[in-house]
Amino acid sequence: MGKEHIVRSFSDELRKLSNIIVRMGGVAEEQVEQAIQAVARRDAKIADQVLRSDVRLDQLEREVDSEVIRLLALRQPMARDLREIISALKIASDLERVGDYAANIAKRSMVLVQMPPVRPAITIPRMGRLVQEILKDVLDAYVDRDVDRAILAWRRDEELDDLFTNLFREVLIYMTEDPGNITPCTHILFMAKNLERVGDHATNIAETIHFLVLGEPLQSQRPKGDGSSYTVVIPDTDDAADGRAHGETQLIQ
Amino acid sequence: MGKEHIVRSFSDELRKLSNIIVRMGGVAEEQVEQAIQAVARRDAKIADQVLRSDVRLDQLEREVDSEVIRLLALRQPMARDLREIISALKIASDLERVGDYAANIAKRSMVLVQMPPVRPAITIPRMGRLVQEILKDVLDAYVDRDVDRAILAWRRDEELDDLFTNLFREVLIYMTEDPGNITPCTHILFMAKNLERVGDHATNIAETIHFLVLGEPLQSQRPKGDGSSYTVVIPDTDDAADGRAHGETQLIQ
Repeated sequence: MGKEHIVRSFSDELRKLSNIIVRMGGVAEEQVEQAIQAVARRDAKIADQVLRSDVRLDQLEREVDSEVIRLLALRQPMARDLREIISALKIASDLERVGDYAANIAKRSMVLVQMPPVRPAITIPRMGRLVQEILKDVLDAYVDRDVDRAILAWRRDEELDDLFTNLFREVLIYMTEDPGNITPCTHILFMAKNLERVGDHATNIAETIHFLVLGEPLQSQRPKGDGSSYTVVIPDTDDAADGRAHGETQLIQ
Repeated sequence: MGKEHIVRSFSDELRKLSNIIVRMGGVAEEQVEQAIQAVARRDAKIADQVLRSDVRLDQLEREVDSEVIRLLALRQPMARDLREIISALKIASDLERVGDYAANIAKRSMVLVQMPPVRPAITIPRMGRLVQEILKDVLDAYVDRDVDRAILAWRRDEELDDLFTNLFREVLIYMTEDPGNITPCTHILFMAKNLERVGDHATNIAETIHFLVLGEPLQSQRPKGDGSSYTVVIPDTDDAADGRAHGETQLIQ
C-alpha cells in the first residue's frame, strides 16, 4: 500500500514534469508566433511583448532543471522513467533557446519598423509558418510520445533549410540593388537564420522523443545546417534599376 | 571492502566521464582554432579539415549521453555526484554546438577564398582570439572545478558581444561602399555571429560549473545576446569612394 502510494505519486511527479515541458512548448510557440507577427505587421508593441515574456521560458527551464535534480536524487529512476526525466532536461533547454531566437527576431523587427518596408520582409512570415508547423508537430509528438510523428517533423526541417538557402540568395541580390536595402535586408537575413535555428531545435526535440520512447538515439543523420554557407552573389557592373533581373547568382556547392 | 571497491570504481567512472568532456573541450578548441585559421589564411584545406572532424564531437556527445544514462541507472548518485553527471550532459551538448559553429565558419571561409579579399575579414581572427580565450578559461575552470575562474570567463562574454556589435556596424558600412562587398561581408557577419554564439555556449558552461560546484544556479543575469540587433546604417546619397568616412551610422538602443 505504502509502496503503491509511492509508485502512484512518482508517476504524478513525472506527469507534472512533463506538463511543465508542454507549458514551455506553448510559451515558445506563442513567442515565435508573436515575433513573426511583429515583423509581418511592423508592430513594435508586439515585439516589445515578446522581449518582456522571454524571462518566462528561462524561469520554466530553471524549474525543470531543479525538478529533474530532485527526482533523480529522491526517486533514483531507471529505464523509461529515467529517460522521461533526462528528456525533460534536454527539451527544456531546446525550448529556452527557441525563446531566445524569437526575442532576437522581435528586436530586429524594431529596426525594420524604423525604415521603409523592403520586399524580402515577406519571406519571414512565409518561413515562420513552416517553422511553426514543425514546432507544433514536434510538441504534439511529445504530448503523445509519438515517435513516427516526431520523425516526420524531423524530416521537414530540410524544407526549412532549403527555404533559408533560397531566401539567403534572394536577399543578397536585393541588397545589391540599393545600398539602402543593406541594413534592413541584413536584419532579415539574421531573422531568417534565427528561424532556421528554431527548426534545428525542433529536430533536437524530435531526436529526444525518439530516445525517450525507444531508448536509443535516432541513428540516420539528417544533413544539418543550411546551404546558404556557400552562397555567392555577383552584382552587375551596370547599375540597372532591376538588379534582381540582372543580378548573377552563383551557388558553390 | 566490496563497498569500498564499488565506491572507488564509481569515482573512477566519474573521472572517466569528466575526461570525455575535457577531450571534447580540446576538440572543440581545435575546431575553432582551425576555422579561424581557415579564414585568416584563406586556406580551403584547413576549412575542409574542420568539416571532416565535426563528426568527432557528435560521437563524443553520444558517448557522454549513454554513459550518463548508464551511471544514473546503475549508480543512482546523489548530491555532488549527481551534479557531476548532469553537468557532463549539459557541457557535452554545449561543446557539440561549438563544433557546429566552427564548421559553419569553415564552410563560409570556402566562399571567401573564391572572392577577392575584403578588409573586414581581419575582424574574424580578432574576434576569434577573444572567443578562444574565453573558451580556454572556461574549460580550465571545468578541469579545476574553479567557480571563480568560471565567473571571470562568464563576465568576459560581454566584451565579445560589444566586439560583435561594433563589427556588425563596420561591416554594414563597408557593404554600402561597394555591392561587390555584400556577399563576402554577409558571410563575415554570419561568421562573427557564429563566434558570438560560441561565446554564449562558453558562458553556459561557466554557469554549469557554478551549479556543479555550488549546487545552485548562477543567479545574476548577464545581459544576453548581441546589441547588433538594433544596428542601422544609412548610406550616403552621393557615391563617395570612401563610404566609411561618410557612411552615417545610427544605433537605436
